[in-house]
Amino acid sequence: MNQTPAQVLESLKSELPPAPPPAGLYKPVLVLDGFLYVSGQGPMQRDGTLMKGRAGDDLDLGQAKAAARQVGLTMLSTILTHFGPVDPIERLVKTFGMVNATPDFPDHPLVINGFSELMASVFGPDKGVGVRSAVGMMLPGNIPVEIEAIFKLR
Amino acid sequence: MNQTPAQVLESLKSELPPAPPPAGLYKPVLVLDGFLYVSGQGPMQRDGTLMKGRAGDDLDLGQAKAAARQVGLTMLSTILTHFGPVDPIERLVKTFGMVNATPDFPDHPLVINGFSELMASVFGPDKGVGVRSAVGMMLPGNIPVEIEAIFKLR
Amino acid sequence: MNQTPAQVLESLKSELPPAPPPAGLYKPVLVLDGFLYVSGQGPMQRDGTLMKGRAGDDLDLGQAKAAARQVGLTMLSTILTHFGPVDPIERLVKTFGMVNATPDFPDHPLVINGFSELMASVFGPDKGVGVRSAVGMMLPGNIPVEIEAIFKLR
Repeated sequence: MNQTPAQVLESLKSELPPAPPPAGLYKPVLVLDGFLYVSGQGPMQRDGTLMKGRAGDDLDLGQAKAAARQVGLTMLSTILTHFGPVDPIERLVKTFGMVNATPDFPDHPLVINGFSELMASVFGPDKGVGVRSAVGMMLPGNIPVEIEAIFKLR
Repeated sequence: MNQTPAQVLESLKSELPPAPPPAGLYKPVLVLDGFLYVSGQGPMQRDGTLMKGRAGDDLDLGQAKAAARQVGLTMLSTILTHFGPVDPIERLVKTFGMVNATPDFPDHPLVINGFSELMASVFGPDKGVGVRSAVGMMLPGNIPVEIEAIFKLR
Repeated sequence: MNQTPAQVLESLKSELPPAPPPAGLYKPVLVLDGFLYVSGQGPMQRDGTLMKGRAGDDLDLGQAKAAARQVGLTMLSTILTHFGPVDPIERLVKTFGMVNATPDFPDHPLVINGFSELMASVFGPDKGVGVRSAVGMMLPGNIPVEIEAIFKLR
């Protein structure tokens, strides 16, 4: 029998970083009309520091993908802290995946898979997978990955 | 008498590329609460390959705009394949237009018009036109344009 | 007693630029299902010209933050012109803040605070603050900041 999202999260508990303090004037999450909107999250580590570096020079694909998974863990921590238990979450709707990358780095989608695979493992292969874009830009404080997402509530 | 979106699409049929396979772990489209969300689409060609190049050096404005139109054809193909006939679509709501451009390229909005003009020709000058941003960034596999969109269903 | 959003706007009246003409084929705003969607806005000035320059070389943090506030004023002008009085607006839901920045510029969130602080002053410290991402990319016509937003209507 499959685990519930809450059960999967329990098994990830030792990996979850603290929920990051807002880096500006915004809400980490907002609940409205049956949707949970989550602000852009960076890869917070267990010690409260953010991963750094740019894909294509500082970081290779594997390292950048690991950073995207860490963004997923950070988002889960943000949700648990500012929204509560994940049981009311019906599904992931939309992910916007932003990779801090050199102009010639080609693999933004493979990087963001680090986030998407985590969400699929928590919420399931249908409900944990939504629409997505995965592209390259410049990110605050030279973090490698930032991701914003929208979830549907039951 | 004006043509319906389905009739316009019929006349575009010979130009439509195949719907691209997902480049990562995401759904090409998601239907939820009366909206059709479409993942970021690139400019797929009839032969199944993606256009390449960067606006401002590899591609001039006209070429980049043609790539944006090709993204629109790709999105229509994705919708027909993964959603079905377009009759249930009421209108375009929101477009996020991403151009792979040099830092000094100034004309992202004119590039993305290649997509917007196609949508207006299919869905009409009101219902085919929504809100939009058109900006420059780095894109996967050096494609020139990527666009995500949200449509409202009837 | 606190001022209403309309009253705060009245006090900002002398600072509001004209609503910018669309830079491409899109609607400046779209009202749908109780939401107000606003297209990406640049920093229009009172004389009808747009601010220019890139954060990290042309513009320092303070100048870029001032440009983000100007984007806020421009968005308010766009709303007043194309939607009407702000009384039906319940709250800010989501901001996507785009900064034209050098690859090593670190402070995109502090730049976008120029917009967010204005929205908080108009709509209040709860209803004027939503979810947000603040990141770096290339922008049309070398404008320093572009912001798109979604508001909830009553």
